[in-house]
Parts: sequence; C-alpha cells; structure tokens
Amino acid sequence: MGAEEHTWSPELEAFHEEIERYYLGPLWAVIQGVITKEPATDAVPYLWKWSVIRERVLRSGELVTPERGGERRVIYLENPGLKAKGIPMAATRTLYAGIQLLLPGEVAPSHRHIQGAIRFILEGEKAYTTVEGEKVYMEKGDFILTPPWTWHDHGHEGTEPMMWMDGLDVPLLDRLKVSFFEPYPEDRHPVKYPPNYSALRYAGGMMRPVGARRGEGGYPSSLILYTWEQTQRALDRLSELEADPCDGYALEYINPNNGESADARIGSWIQKLAPGMHTQAHRHVSSAVYHVKEGRGYTVINGERFDWEAGDFFVVPPWAWHEHVNTGETEAYLFSINDRPVMEKLGLEREEAHPTGWQDVVRVFEPLR
Amino acid sequence: MGAEEHTWSPELEAFHEEIERYYLGPLWAVIQGVITKEPATDAVPYLWKWSVIRERVLRSGELVTPERGGERRVIYLENPGLKAKGIPMAATRTLYAGIQLLLPGEVAPSHRHIQGAIRFILEGEKAYTTVEGEKVYMEKGDFILTPPWTWHDHGHEGTEPMMWMDGLDVPLLDRLKVSFFEPYPEDRHPVKYPPNYSALRYAGGMMRPVGARRGEGGYPSSLILYTWEQTQRALDRLSELEADPCDGYALEYINPNNGESADARIGSWIQKLAPGMHTQAHRHVSSAVYHVKEGRGYTVINGERFDWEAGDFFVVPPWAWHEHVNTGETEAYLFSINDRPVMEKLGLEREEAHPTGWQDVVRVFEPLR
Amino acid sequence: MGAEEHTWSPELEAFHEEIERYYLGPLWAVIQGVITKEPATDAVPYLWKWSVIRERVLRSGELVTPERGGERRVIYLENPGLKAKGIPMAATRTLYAGIQLLLPGEVAPSHRHIQGAIRFILEGEKAYTTVEGEKVYMEKGDFILTPPWTWHDHGHEGTEPMMWMDGLDVPLLDRLKVSFFEPYPEDRHPVKYPPNYSALRYAGGMMRPVGARRGEGGYPSSLILYTWEQTQRALDRLSELEADPCDGYALEYINPNNGESADARIGSWIQKLAPGMHTQAHRHVSSAVYHVKEGRGYTVINGERFDWEAGDFFVVPPWAWHEHVNTGETEAYLFSINDRPVMEKLGLEREEAHPTGWQDVVRVFEPLR
Amino acid sequence: MGAEEHTWSPELEAFHEEIERYYLGPLWAVIQGVITKEPATDAVPYLWKWSVIRERVLRSGELVTPERGGERRVIYLENPGLKAKGIPMAATRTLYAGIQLLLPGEVAPSHRHIQGAIRFILEGEKAYTTVEGEKVYMEKGDFILTPPWTWHDHGHEGTEPMMWMDGLDVPLLDRLKVSFFEPYPEDRHPVKYPPNYSALRYAGGMMRPVGARRGEGGYPSSLILYTWEQTQRALDRLSELEADPCDGYALEYINPNNGESADARIGSWIQKLAPGMHTQAHRHVSSAVYHVKEGRGYTVINGERFDWEAGDFFVVPPWAWHEHVNTGETEAYLFSINDRPVMEKLGLEREEAHPTGWQDVVRVFEPLR
Ligand SMILES: [Fe+2]
Ligand SMILES: [Fe+2]
Ligand SMILES: [Fe+2]
Ligand SMILES: [Fe+2]
Ligand SMILES: [Fe+2]
Ligand SMILES: [Fe+2]
Ligand SMILES: [Fe+2]
Ligand SMILES: [Fe+2]
Repeated sequence: MGAEEHTWSPELEAFHEEIERYYLGPLWAVIQGVITKEPATDAVPYLWKWSVIRERVLRSGELVTPERGGERRVIYLENPGLKAKGIPMAATRTLYAGIQLLLPGEVAPSHRHIQGAIRFILEGEKAYTTVEGEKVYMEKGDFILTPPWTWHDHGHEGTEPMMWMDGLDVPLLDRLKVSFFEPYPEDRHPVKYPPNYSALRYAGGMMRPVGARRGEGGYPSSLILYTWEQTQRALDRLSELEADPCDGYALEYINPNNGESADARIGSWIQKLAPGMHTQAHRHVSSAVYHVKEGRGYTVINGERFDWEAGDFFVVPPWAWHEHVNTGETEAYLFSINDRPVMEKLGLEREEAHPTGWQDVVRVFEPLR
Repeated sequence: MGAEEHTWSPELEAFHEEIERYYLGPLWAVIQGVITKEPATDAVPYLWKWSVIRERVLRSGELVTPERGGERRVIYLENPGLKAKGIPMAATRTLYAGIQLLLPGEVAPSHRHIQGAIRFILEGEKAYTTVEGEKVYMEKGDFILTPPWTWHDHGHEGTEPMMWMDGLDVPLLDRLKVSFFEPYPEDRHPVKYPPNYSALRYAGGMMRPVGARRGEGGYPSSLILYTWEQTQRALDRLSELEADPCDGYALEYINPNNGESADARIGSWIQKLAPGMHTQAHRHVSSAVYHVKEGRGYTVINGERFDWEAGDFFVVPPWAWHEHVNTGETEAYLFSINDRPVMEKLGLEREEAHPTGWQDVVRVFEPLR
Repeated sequence: MGAEEHTWSPELEAFHEEIERYYLGPLWAVIQGVITKEPATDAVPYLWKWSVIRERVLRSGELVTPERGGERRVIYLENPGLKAKGIPMAATRTLYAGIQLLLPGEVAPSHRHIQGAIRFILEGEKAYTTVEGEKVYMEKGDFILTPPWTWHDHGHEGTEPMMWMDGLDVPLLDRLKVSFFEPYPEDRHPVKYPPNYSALRYAGGMMRPVGARRGEGGYPSSLILYTWEQTQRALDRLSELEADPCDGYALEYINPNNGESADARIGSWIQKLAPGMHTQAHRHVSSAVYHVKEGRGYTVINGERFDWEAGDFFVVPPWAWHEHVNTGETEAYLFSINDRPVMEKLGLEREEAHPTGWQDVVRVFEPLR
Repeated sequence: MGAEEHTWSPELEAFHEEIERYYLGPLWAVIQGVITKEPATDAVPYLWKWSVIRERVLRSGELVTPERGGERRVIYLENPGLKAKGIPMAATRTLYAGIQLLLPGEVAPSHRHIQGAIRFILEGEKAYTTVEGEKVYMEKGDFILTPPWTWHDHGHEGTEPMMWMDGLDVPLLDRLKVSFFEPYPEDRHPVKYPPNYSALRYAGGMMRPVGARRGEGGYPSSLILYTWEQTQRALDRLSELEADPCDGYALEYINPNNGESADARIGSWIQKLAPGMHTQAHRHVSSAVYHVKEGRGYTVINGERFDWEAGDFFVVPPWAWHEHVNTGETEAYLFSINDRPVMEKLGLEREEAHPTGWQDVVRVFEPLR
C-alpha cells in the first residue's frame, strides 16, 4: 500500500520479534510490501539477441544429447530480475521460453507432464513431434500444442539441425509447486493416427468434424497443429482491415471446440506490423514473451527502447507500458506467449490505455552481444 | 405409451364428457397419444426435385416483387405430413427451408426478426446481404448467417438471377408462438464495415482477432460469411482421413467464439460422400433438411429410397433411420440444416446406430416432376 | 407482420395453387401470419376453481385406478384457446398442469419419460415419490422434482386421499414430437437411499456436500425435495426487505449445483403477496401456470380481472400483461411453473414493464363453477 | 524428474557459466528441480495453539490500532517452510490466514483490493463488516465474504473484543505479483442496504430472489453472509446420513448463482466429525488451512500426528497425506480454507486415496506453547 517506511517503537519491535518465534507475523508491518497498490513485478523488460542464442544452441548440440527424464537439449531465457531472486527457469513469473535443438536422427524420448507446452518452429524441416499418438511434422512458422499430461516425443528424419521455441507454464506451476512428470517406458509412444491428423480434421478452422462432438480425436483441444500457411493467410486477410491501435494485426490461436485459448493456460498470439506502423501504448496485468519471427523495429517498454530484428526474443512484464514500432521496409511478425488465460480464469486481468497514447523514450536498451 | 386402444365404461365416458365442459381432461385417456414410447413424428420423409423448384422460383420472379414487411420472394418447402395437419411453412416441426430469388437491381428491404436465418448460395453472383452494417457478397456454395434480431437486407449488383436457400427456425418459433418482427424505416440499413468484414477477420478459422475479446465486431457469432473456398479446402483435407461411418466426411459450421453451432439454434452441416460411398444407418431425435449441392445418389429413410441429384432437397424427420449412398462417379456434397442445437440445449437429443448397419429398402419414392 | 389482408391477382392465385400441388408454398402469402410482430399466442388467460377441480379429482378416485403404462389418475387443465386448436394436454403451448390423486395403499407404478416433472403438494400426508431409488415423503407445500428420464413411482402409506399438482413440459415436447417413455418391469423401483436423502444432504441450501463434486448423489440436480418449511422461512426473511415491484416477494427454486432452475426446462416460483399488495404490470415471452396456495385476491391479465382464492389455478399466456393483487387480510402465496428456462436457453425471452404501471380493468372473468 | 545428481564435464560446466552471463540457462541442468515427478512443496505441515495466538492477538490490541492503508490489526500464520524461503504472509503458497482483532468503538477504514477475503467469526458480538454498502453483523461461527475489489470496512458497536479469522489469497497473488489496492477516501463506505441484506434474500439456500436474474443485489456471489445457524442445521441433517470416508460430514460454502465456491478463488469448508470418527487418508494437490471450531482430536499429516483442540489452526500442504480423528466425546467441527477453486480452474487438481486406508504414525508434533 503506501510506500512510506514505518518505524516501530522499541516495544512494538520487541513484540514483532516475540511473535515471530511462534511463526506468527504482524500484518501491519508487512502488508505494504505484499498488498501493493499496483503490481510490484520483479520481472524486468529484457531482450536476447538471436545471434547470441543461436550460436549457443548450436554449440549445445556438440555438448549434450537429449535423454530419458525430460532432459531435452534446450537453452532457456532467464529474466535477470527473477534470476536475481533465485526464481529458476523464468522469463516471467508464469512463463518459460526456451530454444530446443534436435539434430538429424535424434530422438527426444517420450514423457508427459502437467505443464502445458507450445512450440513455434524456427528453423529446419522433417522433424516431428508425436503427441498422444499423433505425429506432427514441423515446418517454419508452425504453431504446435502439447497439452498438459499428454505423452510426447520428438524425432528428426531430416538432414539439418532443427530449432524451435518452447513455451511452457513451468514458472507458474513452480510458484504453486504442483508439478507432475512421468517418463514413458519406451523412447517412442506408438503412433495411432495419420500424420498431421488433427490439422486435416480442422483445416477449415470454423468448421468442426462432426465426430468431435462424440469425443473422437480426443485432446483437450482436438487440434494441435496450426500451420504457418493458414496463419499467413489469416494475417493477410486481416490486414485488409484497419489495425488494432495497440496490437496491430493481431490474432490469438484458439481451441475450435470452445473458442478459448489453444492451450488452456498459455495464450499464444501472432501479430503483424505493417512497415512504419507504430502502435499505441497500453499495459495489462498479463505478461508476455515475444519472438520476432520476421522484420525489424523496436518496442518501448516502460520508457525504454528495445530494438529488435528477426530471431530476437524479449519480455513484456506485467503491468508494463508497451508499444511496438516497425522500422523496416517489410512486414514485421511477432509471435508471443502470455499468461492471459490464467489471469482471466482467476479474475485478475486488467488493461489500461496510455493516457497520452505513446510513451516518452527515456532509455535505450543495450543488448548483450 | 402402450399403443392399444382403451374402451371406457359408459360411466367413465360420461365423466370424461362432464369434466371436459370445465376445460379439464382425464390424463389416463389421452396420455398414450402424447407421452409416446418413441418420437411420434408427423413430419414425413420427402424429396423435392430441383427442376420443379427452379422453374417455379424463376416464374415467381415475373409475378411478385420483394416488399416492405418481410415479403421476400421465396418459395418454401412444405412437409406433406405437416401440411396435412395445418402446420404452416414447415419442412420439419422446427425447420423452414425456402429458395429465394433476387433479380438484378432489386432490393429486399431491411428488417429484423427473432427467427435466425442461414443462407446457402445456389446460383448467381454479385448479390449481397447486409447484416447489421456488414455487406457480404454471396458466391455459390457460401454459407451466410443472419443471427436473430439483426437488421438485414439483400441487394443485387449483378446481371443474372440470384438464388439461394434460406434456412430458418420459423416453425420452432411458431410452435412456441414467440415471434418478433420489425421493419427498418428505410430500404437499406447503413453499411458500417468493409465488405466481407468478418470473413477477413476470421480467415484463419482457429485464430481470433484479439479485439473480439473486447467485444469488437459485434454479432452473436462475430463471423457471418463462411466461403465455399474454405469449405472445399476443409473437406478436401478431411477426406485424406477415414470417413465417419454414418456421416461420411462431415463438417459442422461453428461459431469461433464458443465452439458452438454457427447459428445458436440452427445447426448447419456440409457432407462429402466419395464415389461409391455407402454410409451406415442411424437415427437421432434431431431432424434435418438436406440440399444436394453436387452429385448423384440416394438416401434410404425408414426403408424408403429417395434418389437425388444436384439441386434436390429432402427431409429426414426426427428419429428416422437414414443412410446415404453416392452412386455417381464424382464426389457428392450435401448441405443440410438441423435442429440439433435446440435438442442439445434442451437435453432432448439421442442417437442410435442401426442394429444391422443398413436398412432393407422396401419402397422407392417417386418424386413429383 | 402487417395485419392487412392481401388480395392476389387471379394469375398469382393460380400460381399459388399450382405450386401447392408440389408441396411448395409462396412465402409472401403466409409470412404475416407466422413471422408476427409480436407473439401471436393462442393460449388464453383462464382460471379454474379449486372447488370444481377437487370434486372431480375425488370422483375420479372412484372411477379409475393408476395403471402400468403411465396412466396416473390425474385431471389436467386444458387451455380453452389451445383446446380449440386441437392441442392436447396443454395449459400453455409448453406447460402441462394436472392434479393427481393417490388413495391410501395405492401404487402408481414406476416408469420414466423424457418429460420433466415437478410436484407441488396440495393435500394429505404419508404418500411418497421414489425417484431413482430415493424415497421422498410429500407434505403440504413441498416442492419435489422428477428430472427427465429418472425412474419414479408413487405410493401411499397414509389414510387420507393425497393430492398434488403435477407440472410437466408435455406440450413443449409434443410440439417437437420428441417423447420417450419406458415402463419399469416392476411396480416399484428399488430404494437405494435413506428417505429424503437429497434434502438431508442439501439442508443448508448454499452449502454443498463435498462428495457432490465427485458425482455422488447423482441426479441432474442432486436435490429433489424442497420442503415447505424452508420455503416458508426463505419467504419470511425475504419479506423483511422491499418487495419486487412486479413480482412481490418472489423466489425461484434453483439447482444448487449450477444455480440454474431446479428442473432444467421447467421454471418453478413461489411468490408471497402481503395483504393489500398490488404489483405493477409487466409482460414477458415466458408463460406460466399459477396455483393459489393460500390467500385471496385477483390478477389482471390483458385487462381482464381473474379473482382467485386458495386452491385455484390460472394461466398467464406469453406476452400477456399481468399484475397481482392481494385483497385478503392475510398473506397470499402463489406457486407457479413457467417455461422461462426454455426461453432463456433458446435466446427467446423478453420482458417489458407496463408503460403506465398498471392496466385498466375492462372485463371481469366469470369462472365456471 | 529423476532425483540423482548430475556431474558435468569441465567443458560443459564452462559452457553453463558462459551462457549464464547472457541470461540463458541449460534446461538439462535444472529441469529435475522444477519439473518434478510429484509436487515438491516447501510448505510444511504445522499447528498453532489457540492459547498462543489469542494471548498475542489481545496484546496487539494494546500496541497497535487499525489505520488507513490496509493496516488491520491482524496476526497471521507463517508457514515455517515458506518463511525459511522468504515467502511472506504465507500459510501455504496460495493461502493467507490471520486473526483479526477489533475493539469496541473501533473502525477499520474502508478499502478494496483484488485479493478475495473470507471471515470466520471466532469471538465476540455486535461488530460488523460493510461490503459495498451491505452491513453484515458478525456472530460466532458465521462465514462472511468480501469478494475481490469490493469496498469494505469493519466497525464494532459492542462492548467486548471481537476476533475473527481472515482468509485471503494474498500469497497466490504475491506469487503472481498482480496486486491492486485502493483506500476509500473516507473511513466508512455508505450503507445502501438493510443489515444482512443478502442473507435475508437467500435464506432459503436453494431458492433465489427472482430479481437476482436481473442483476439486482450485485456482488459477484450476491450472498455474503452464511450464518452459523444455517450451517449447524445443514450439518445436523447431513449427519443423519453416512459420512464421507475421507472428509466426514463435509460441506462446501457455495455461490447460489452458479454453484461454484462462495469466493471464486478461495474454497471454504466446514466439516463435522462425530465422536470417535477416524477418516481415511487421502492427498490432493490443493492445500488447506484448518481452524478447529469445536472439539478435540488429531490429524495425521504425512505420518506426523498433530493434536488439536478448539481454537487451534493447522496447515495441510499440497499433496500431503492426511486423516482426521475425533478423540473427544462431543462433535468436532473443522472450518478450513483451500485453493481448490484455483487448482480446478487451472486444471491442476488431483486426488488420491491412501493405498492402505490409513497412515502409520511415525512422529508426534510438539507445538510451541
Ligand atoms: Fe516435455
Ligand atoms: Fe499488449
Ligand atoms: Fe429476414
Ligand atoms: Fe444423421
Ligand atoms: Fe411420470
Ligand atoms: Fe410475470
Ligand atoms: Fe481488506
Ligand atoms: Fe482432504
């Protein structure tokens, strides 16, 4: 609440110390640090250069191999603010983002966990993910779901290194300490469906195979592959209309069976910014991790300018003002994950437009290179 | 309940007559006709030839004009069983289907009604429907929604007669006597959006423009145009998989915002039957009106064979066994509307597979020509 | 739509006749009678005197016995407007209301049907209803549910005639022709639970036995007995507050598991009118059948005054203005059933306050005696 | 995942250190500590004696006064396991529990916060809580809601100290860093309704005032006072049936408008254990804070015996085995709060029965006195 510091009488100090020994605490002394007037986030805005990440991801291919027990070959983003607090594997307090590498011929063995996962494909071809018996081939720009507690393994039938972004709600579940994990007894879970089964069933988007009403096809979302081809088409058509003032041409991947987010806890968005587009600033309780699929520009976050180009990743913390600018001559595409579904399910989301539309840039962020 | 006829003692007959004068009725005497063991539908299976309909629809173009007050130029299907009972405008007890004609330059003036409407486009081009300010151009095979109580008018900028199928829940609302209707003070409702606005916003199908969460775009379903192009693609991809035993390659048009049927009360399906395909028989409480978009074949309904070809319409009544056969050398496409959303919302839907898989054909229906 | 009569040219008349032979109809000629500006209900307001009903119900005890096959000993209310149209067993187009008599020692054999049923107990004691193995004893003023497709039988362990009101959605399901009925192979379904099981589990109202989350207790609503004792208490406490202008002190029986109406399709209300209370007039699409539990007064329906006293039944048709007056010196209690849940689920409900607050009384209804 | 320790080659160690400088992390090195096979909770089972708490709460009445800014006079429970990790104000990682003291004539000024709060009244009378203009008098055993973001203040018109338990989801919101707080400009929010308004409206429990459908009465749950009188009655009636094997006679406070938990994020339960009752052990992801309203007994948590008597508080952490025993000669009543609604909304709840029914007691907890 109020930010001012209290000083306590010696008598009260003594009382505080006395009750503390009984694992009791004085609300009046600590409430201001916990029930704050506005979100007192400790995640900081940050940006990672793709050149930095990519080099190390490729190098990890020489040093480690995917193993039983979940040890995928992934390098993940650590939010400096949260790292300083000892919060592990966290891009924000709820979201994890990593870059996974799979080499030709490798297998990342089958397992399942209560954490949900999304994939956004960065480089390579002919690798696949198998989710509960559905083998899904991954192509650049595809968006792929691994719903919570579904068996999944990855394999690679191609000849070049394959890289993709993993997005999970690991930090959220670690905040709550509610993880469950189970390795599959064999490397590969049996394949039950034709390749890309669910994408074939839902190719029309707003049309559902009638068997789905009878529970056929069976994942929480029924649909686990959203191809870049259809994403591109969706963005192109949307771009014939006026852009959203704060979000540009922005689409949310949804679950066709209930209209909610594709993953029940992780929101996933794709945004297109036309050349020269400068969106208005806003802020919201939900936080996000962005990946620059294509293009060049910058994002102003709480007055600090974060320049980005294709491949870069950056974080927008909770309740941070942010606006995007495309400075390039071509479209910019931003893929992002967020915790909006969690905030909405728990009744915690809020959104606010910037009072003057745009922020003043008071700092320029210098990324590590 | 039991089908047997009761005879009553003279004393009881007299009692029945006595209470009837007080607008009281003896349950024991009538219950068997009303609380029946199975649906005692009075709608009959029936088929209308497109050649018969088309000729008369075109002829109506010479005789009547669209007018204020809802008098569209439409010829509708009358179920002979329901017509015999004096139930008006009914293909089944819940569904209305008509064929509307709009001539070049004509306008069907704006109005709104609590009855929902879907359109499936049969012939022509460059006509449009305007729904609450969104102008939607109609092309063959497109599926278009007019949600309940939305202002809508039709216009025609082309040079050839335009024909489409109208599907409404007029009979359902007439069973309940709950109609509301209002003419717009002018012929045309103002256009507020770019042409095909919602189709541009939802072109990706399982991707939603983020503004829709904030209520932008505004219809009950947000999306009112489902183009044949995307329907065709959805069916093609679905056809790479195994067909549904009873329904072939069948898709339901859905509302991307909640995963429910596109219109909240009228279900709409498109089915593709590969050459030679013969589906298994089943029956369900929900009833349907079919339109043969393309192809040639027959449907067996309660043991009677209904041969069909492109353009024909036919009715599958509630709880009637039915199976479809494509006898042609090309794909057959069946569009249909049904009352399944109503039955499901009211907890009344049931479905049953035929005990032997297929019916014996005991009759062949002779359509009027 | 417009009420004006059309006249058609001889040529058009001939065309109408010609297409009619093909079971085709001209929309322009019939639309005004079907898509009406406002609900064109054919149910009429009506009132039945309890003295008339009771005498005949008791007389039926001498003439008929409950039998296998659903033939309960019930005398039901026939809306004169609907009777004139040949619509059977209908108080309104959706609602059935009857008065059932069970004599000491009798059994009304077990059966189930897709129609939902509610009971409101009028006279007698020590009779019971068994619903899916739960035996519920009936006392005056109790409200009891028989959810759709649950086995139920009635028995009588007392010494005096037992009478109760039955409310079912028979006419709604008959409009749709979707009935299912099944007799149980024996007279009585086995009892699985202690007497009044669900009422013991839910005695706190806004408190749920935790096992219910795991599906224990099993009906659609989990709760099937709402005692008059708790109803009375609820009304008494509510009466310490201001009354609702149109409904007085009015409570809806709800399903504690989802906050919806106790029966999923039949709404049930209890209303208390303080002495002298005169509610404001309103109208709504949903219709209702009222039973006067206690008191004396009148209801004005579409300008006609219907005087009532304890035991009487009356009907408020769809979209009819209505207001209630308690002319007695004690509280009046009105129990009623309505089709509001159906109208709401189908998106058809509307409500309107009377422009001047109260109607002019232009007629007085003379009930048959 | 696997618990075994990895050792890394010097080369890999160097790589880990190198990428760490770029705020990148190696998944393979940390995943086992975060994606665990089962919840790796750091909250410990613990018990606080009422005598210890009460003495200090009363003493705090001499030392501090309620102030503007949220500084209620509350002593809260600190889970030793979480305190060791620097997690403030946490009984579990999601739940806060405190004991609030209000002295005669005092006012705890009005404010609102996004954290939800429940109160369970421990001692005293004639104090009240005002929630959005509804003044609710507090009596022993009452359960009172302060839904998120509703203005609330407390006052005291009596003569004795008033004490109650506060339950909030402060730690959950602190995990997510999403707090909002606002002081009201004046001490007291204006009263808009008669005292105990919502309890009068919902006195029937499974009956809803019909105006609530039109949004009248207005809180998220409409109902904010659940009196001990009705709780007692509910438990008494429930006790005529068989107890739940793991939970005894257990009731959840629910929101009558949707059948969900009374507070949308905090579950609240009351349990009665008959003399001698020994429940079976189970465990679940959701955690709980218990308060012993009456009685004497013990709870075995993960093999450790926690003896309790009236007034004590104890914690059952996530995924901890627990079983309850009433060793007294009278009924025991346990009130508790839990995070089950959060776990269920996020799809994270699981429950497991103990393989042998009961745990072996391997330790006895010695509470601080
Ligand atoms: Fe995984
Ligand atoms: Fe944003
Ligand atoms: Fe229309
Ligand atoms: Fe079918
Ligand atoms: Fe029955
Ligand atoms: Fe009314
Ligand atoms: Fe507070
Ligand atoms: Fe438990």
